[in-house]
Amino acid sequence: EHTATIIDGKAIARQVQQEIAVKVSKMKESVGKAPGLAVILVGTRKDSETYVQIKKKACEEVGFDFFGVKLPDNTTQDEILKFVKKFNDNPAVHGTQVQLPLPKHISEEAILGAVTIEKDVDGLHPMNVGRLAMQGRNPMFMSFSAKGCIELLLRTGVVIQGKHAVVIGRSNIVGTPAALLLQQRNATVTVVHSKTPNPAEVTRNADIVIAAVGVPELVRGSWLKPGAVVLDVGINPVEDLSKKKGYRLVGDVCYKEASLVASKITPVPGGVGPMTIAMLLSNTLESANRAYGLVDT
Amino acid sequence: EHTATIIDGKAIARQVQQEIAVKVSKMKESVGKAPGLAVILVGTRKDSETYVQIKKKACEEVGFDFFGVKLPDNTTQDEILKFVKKFNDNPAVHGTQVQLPLPKHISEEAILGAVTIEKDVDGLHPMNVGRLAMQGRNPMFMSFSAKGCIELLLRTGVVIQGKHAVVIGRSNIVGTPAALLLQQRNATVTVVHSKTPNPAEVTRNADIVIAAVGVPELVRGSWLKPGAVVLDVGINPVEDLSKKKGYRLVGDVCYKEASLVASKITPVPGGVGPMTIAMLLSNTLESANRAYGLVDT
Ligand SMILES: NC(=O)C1=CN([C@@H]2O[C@H](COP(=O)(O)OP(=O)(O)OC[C@H]3O[C@@H](n4cnc5c(N)ncnc54)[C@H](OP(=O)(O)O)[C@@H]3O)[C@@H](O)[C@H]2O)C=CC1
Ligand SMILES: NC(=O)C1=CN([C@@H]2O[C@H](COP(=O)(O)OP(=O)(O)OC[C@H]3O[C@@H](n4cnc5c(N)ncnc54)[C@H](OP(=O)(O)O)[C@@H]3O)[C@@H](O)[C@H]2O)C=CC1
Repeated sequence: EHTATIIDGKAIARQVQQEIAVKVSKMKESVGKAPGLAVILVGTRKDSETYVQIKKKACEEVGFDFFGVKLPDNTTQDEILKFVKKFNDNPAVHGTQVQLPLPKHISEEAILGAVTIEKDVDGLHPMNVGRLAMQGRNPMFMSFSAKGCIELLLRTGVVIQGKHAVVIGRSNIVGTPAALLLQQRNATVTVVHSKTPNPAEVTRNADIVIAAVGVPELVRGSWLKPGAVVLDVGINPVEDLSKKKGYRLVGDVCYKEASLVASKITPVPGGVGPMTIAMLLSNTLESANRAYGLVDT
Repeated sequence: EHTATIIDGKAIARQVQQEIAVKVSKMKESVGKAPGLAVILVGTRKDSETYVQIKKKACEEVGFDFFGVKLPDNTTQDEILKFVKKFNDNPAVHGTQVQLPLPKHISEEAILGAVTIEKDVDGLHPMNVGRLAMQGRNPMFMSFSAKGCIELLLRTGVVIQGKHAVVIGRSNIVGTPAALLLQQRNATVTVVHSKTPNPAEVTRNADIVIAAVGVPELVRGSWLKPGAVVLDVGINPVEDLSKKKGYRLVGDVCYKEASLVASKITPVPGGVGPMTIAMLLSNTLESANRAYGLVDT
């Protein structure tokens, strides 16, 4: 029985991080500085705290400086903006991240728009999104989740040009930048969303599928063209009383069915997730290279 | 034999311009001002000169103030930037347009990026493109060619939500913003470009086709699903010695074949073209409304 090759995001991410660590050592030798990542966390969401911890640990592993700020839930927008501006002005910081989601009383647009585009390692500033969408313009950064997907394709030898890609989901963070990036690399791209009446039929045209929906196991085996390459961005907790935590994580793709049809597939966890962090580090390194006038090799 | 209904862009554009003229009269009554459009023309391209003339005439017809600047081919970038800045600072100007293409020695990105986003009636500033691409962000302006296409669909009762749309071409001016706008209105959108190996097959999935390619009569009848709605943005001169000028204009769609398959279709000329000018006026009016704190009714 056919089974898809597993795209081992964890192993690839580890390799990317090792490459980054080497470059950081060289940077320290040549200019005596390390890349710096600042993360602003507002509130006490458990998942957000976990993500910030993961980022901090990843920074330490590759030799980045980490600047963490933890603010209470009731912090005003102006106070958050003060920290954003402080990091904008701090030459040791090359990337500033505001952990999302923000509390309801804060305007995400106002906060994200205040991060100088030179430090917008999230790639969420409209200026960077606009440049990504345009021919002949280079964004300073692009969404690291989307970049992680593309990097997985490149590092597993998947040809993008000339292929039909279907991206399911059109969020600012994943779906839209992933579609733009695939198109930049000359895939023919279709974007499926919640108002698409026939997502299965549309997805069956795809040589490459990126699922970024947030619906557990939405994409069934029957949605896939035999041999399709499947990247599953979804991270969804579903109840599982056999686990200590009472839940397990599943993707937006029904892995069991899809792995019988696809040629390559990312597991959840251990697929796209680890690459996301590696690409955040990569964006921050790029920014530091620019700040110190270094050419990436 | 079936023949598609013609989408009469000329008549619809005339109607839009009449609506605009009424609003301009009201604006003059209420605040004593008219919308103002500035167009900077560099060089002596015949087609560009014609377009500027058309814009000037359209402005006069609806009661806009027109600010035209004509500069020689060898104008430096700095000189052009001076005019852009002058118009940025002039409160009587609500839209500033630099006629494209610019001479080779000028950076289009630098010039277009200098137009303040408040007067970017072209919708070509990356900030406006980025906001158009993002969920929950409103661009101040969007490409008027793309807006013209959508307006033609809306005014001829074509439902967009839930439909599969194929946009052929991905330029900054037409293809990309048209795709983003269709997606914003909940179409499922596929973008076809020069690296798409099977454009006919992909296009046959479409309920709505927008062709913005610049290749005369590329889209054949066999590319279309019966009943598709076809918008032809192309304006291509082809040799025709029976005409006084020695050429005639054809679209990117083979009209003769397509009109036998489509349900609705725009002719060339007289389809998308006139709407483009009407939407430029519409963008400029919107800008003036914002400047004078008026609410569009
Ligand atoms: N691996 C990683 O590092 C990351 C993982 N994620 C995970 O990826 C998933 C998506 O995240 P995110 O993009 O932020 O989610 P959002 O909720 O912001 O966006 C979800 C998108 O999916 C579309 N959608 C929702 N339901 C359906 C449906 N039934 N059929 C087709 N489309 C649908 C929505 O369409 P519409 O626009 O019409 O509402 C929307 O565009 C989540 O599981 C999240 O946890 C997110 C970021 C990073
Ligand atoms: N009606 C109006 O008011 C306007 C009309 N136009 C007309 O619209 C047309 C397009 O203009 P514009 O968008 O500026 O043109 P561009 O040349 O900037 O872009 C053309 C696009 O078409 C794609 N393309 C080229 N050849 C093929 C092919 N054989 N198959 C599929 N795709 C192809 C290109 O792909 P790739 O990216 O891979 O190179 C590119 O994305 C022109 O005829 C122009 O005169 C333009 C503006 C306004």
